[in-house]
Amino acid sequence: MVSKLIDKIQKTNAPIVVGLDPKLDFIPDRIKDKCFEEKGKNLEGAAEAFWQYNKEIVDNIYDIVPAVKPQIAMYEELGIPGLITYKKTVDYCKEKGLVVIADVKRGDIGSTSLSYAQAHLGGVKIGDSTFSGFDADFATVNPYLGTDGVKPFIDVCNTADKGIFVLVKTSNPSSGEFQDRLIDGRPLYEIVGEQVEKWGLESMDGAYSNVGAVVGATYPEMGKILREIMPHAYILVPGYGAQGGKGKDLVHFFNKDGLGAIVNSSRGIIAAWKSDSYKEFSDGRVGEAARAAALDMKKDIEEALQRRV
Amino acid sequence: MVSKLIDKIQKTNAPIVVGLDPKLDFIPDRIKDKCFEEKGKNLEGAAEAFWQYNKEIVDNIYDIVPAVKPQIAMYEELGIPGLITYKKTVDYCKEKGLVVIADVKRGDIGSTSLSYAQAHLGGVKIGDSTFSGFDADFATVNPYLGTDGVKPFIDVCNTADKGIFVLVKTSNPSSGEFQDRLIDGRPLYEIVGEQVEKWGLESMDGAYSNVGAVVGATYPEMGKILREIMPHAYILVPGYGAQGGKGKDLVHFFNKDGLGAIVNSSRGIIAAWKSDSYKEFSDGRVGEAARAAALDMKKDIEEALQRRV
Repeated sequence: MVSKLIDKIQKTNAPIVVGLDPKLDFIPDRIKDKCFEEKGKNLEGAAEAFWQYNKEIVDNIYDIVPAVKPQIAMYEELGIPGLITYKKTVDYCKEKGLVVIADVKRGDIGSTSLSYAQAHLGGVKIGDSTFSGFDADFATVNPYLGTDGVKPFIDVCNTADKGIFVLVKTSNPSSGEFQDRLIDGRPLYEIVGEQVEKWGLESMDGAYSNVGAVVGATYPEMGKILREIMPHAYILVPGYGAQGGKGKDLVHFFNKDGLGAIVNSSRGIIAAWKSDSYKEFSDGRVGEAARAAALDMKKDIEEALQRRV
Repeated sequence: MVSKLIDKIQKTNAPIVVGLDPKLDFIPDRIKDKCFEEKGKNLEGAAEAFWQYNKEIVDNIYDIVPAVKPQIAMYEELGIPGLITYKKTVDYCKEKGLVVIADVKRGDIGSTSLSYAQAHLGGVKIGDSTFSGFDADFATVNPYLGTDGVKPFIDVCNTADKGIFVLVKTSNPSSGEFQDRLIDGRPLYEIVGEQVEKWGLESMDGAYSNVGAVVGATYPEMGKILREIMPHAYILVPGYGAQGGKGKDLVHFFNKDGLGAIVNSSRGIIAAWKSDSYKEFSDGRVGEAARAAALDMKKDIEEALQRRV
């Protein structure tokens, strides 16, 4: 699956993933009012507003970016109606040719991790047929439980041609509390990173592995070291834009071949219409603003990569 | 919320939680055949079988155990129909007076963790009303992202009177890969345990905190140390029975007051009808076998606690 992602990145010339993390605050009144009127001012109405909003964004960016990353927490918050919108969003994005990274951060003991892997990437056998609960291309995975919590995901990657991104160094302020603690003089995230590289060798797909890593844009120096520790891992980099990361912080996440990293922006793109930088769309033109912001982000990263020696 | 759990444990005299982790293999043909015929041999049929199976178990145990712990991965695997069964199961168990521990192992950066906390424990505000996606009493939480990933759950515990169990030392074979690594001479799980105790002081509810911990029955010596490090944390202990833990391994997880721990068994109870130990129910009497196995487990733990000096 990582070779498909790389192909899409090269075709769009944009190592960018758009985080589809809807919040009611991001959605213009024209969409919310209509959905609340049709479905009620409740979970169903909110979930419908998420769907209409996502669709406008996807319709305006699918030809210029390779991938999207819906954050399932936002949908789960709306219960069953929210998860129906999540599924519709995943399916619609795939129809539009986008690679879909399910940001689910799942992870459990072996047999339970297998259920999560089959839920989000593979499928479950019922009688003689296999059915998919949620059929994304990649999923994010939490490594705290160790190899037997991650291995079932890798097995599903191998049988169903899918991929994962394992949390190594997250973008949030307190990520260092456990992740930076020193073990034999080296931070835990490096130990996890080494393990990601090892796991990855079990699911190679061209020059890179289907087993990637999550490393926050907010920690560029650590990204530099992790890039070296995990030469075969694609790095999913959250924290660009709204969380403080900038293009120049990102160069170390990329390999010399210009590949090896894909940078996520959520709010900076999907809520661009509310930002001072895109005032011309402040009348609620969500999709056009998202397109403009995605193009600006692409340019920022492109220029930063060109500037590096 | 922990005081409500303790009250239920004392009334039933059973520090036991039944893991509602259905698998098609555990369900007798009489249930599966009927559900497949009614809903199809697909996700809907399987989800209906999960529901009928859960209901038989719950109807036979709700008066002798204080709590249940549905593992959401099993339901997520069946997509939307599975999650509808998950929600029905949570709601039904609460109607029956059981405390419901949502085994979701969620955890993300701050604002995203808040969405998960609101999804499973609190509620989301839409207009002037608050709506619940999934309304459990406790949820399990992954600590890898540090305080700002856990704090939103604690805030929701405080506003909605709910609880969490944070993963400290998990029951699986490779849990030691990261959790046992030494930091300043002490394993990571102790560092996480200390943090759980600190977090817990922000949500005290009587002698114990709404912030508990998960520590596997498979590691009794570590449980002994963690019991001391986290005096106010209720410990949720998975790994009893099918995973190898026995009553005598569990005594160190309890405090001198006979409280402080609740032991989970899933397969050992919900699939008891398939076990050689409960042959009399092998014709598919799921509920009666579950009741017999729960009573045996209660006795095993009771005797082990009485034997300790």
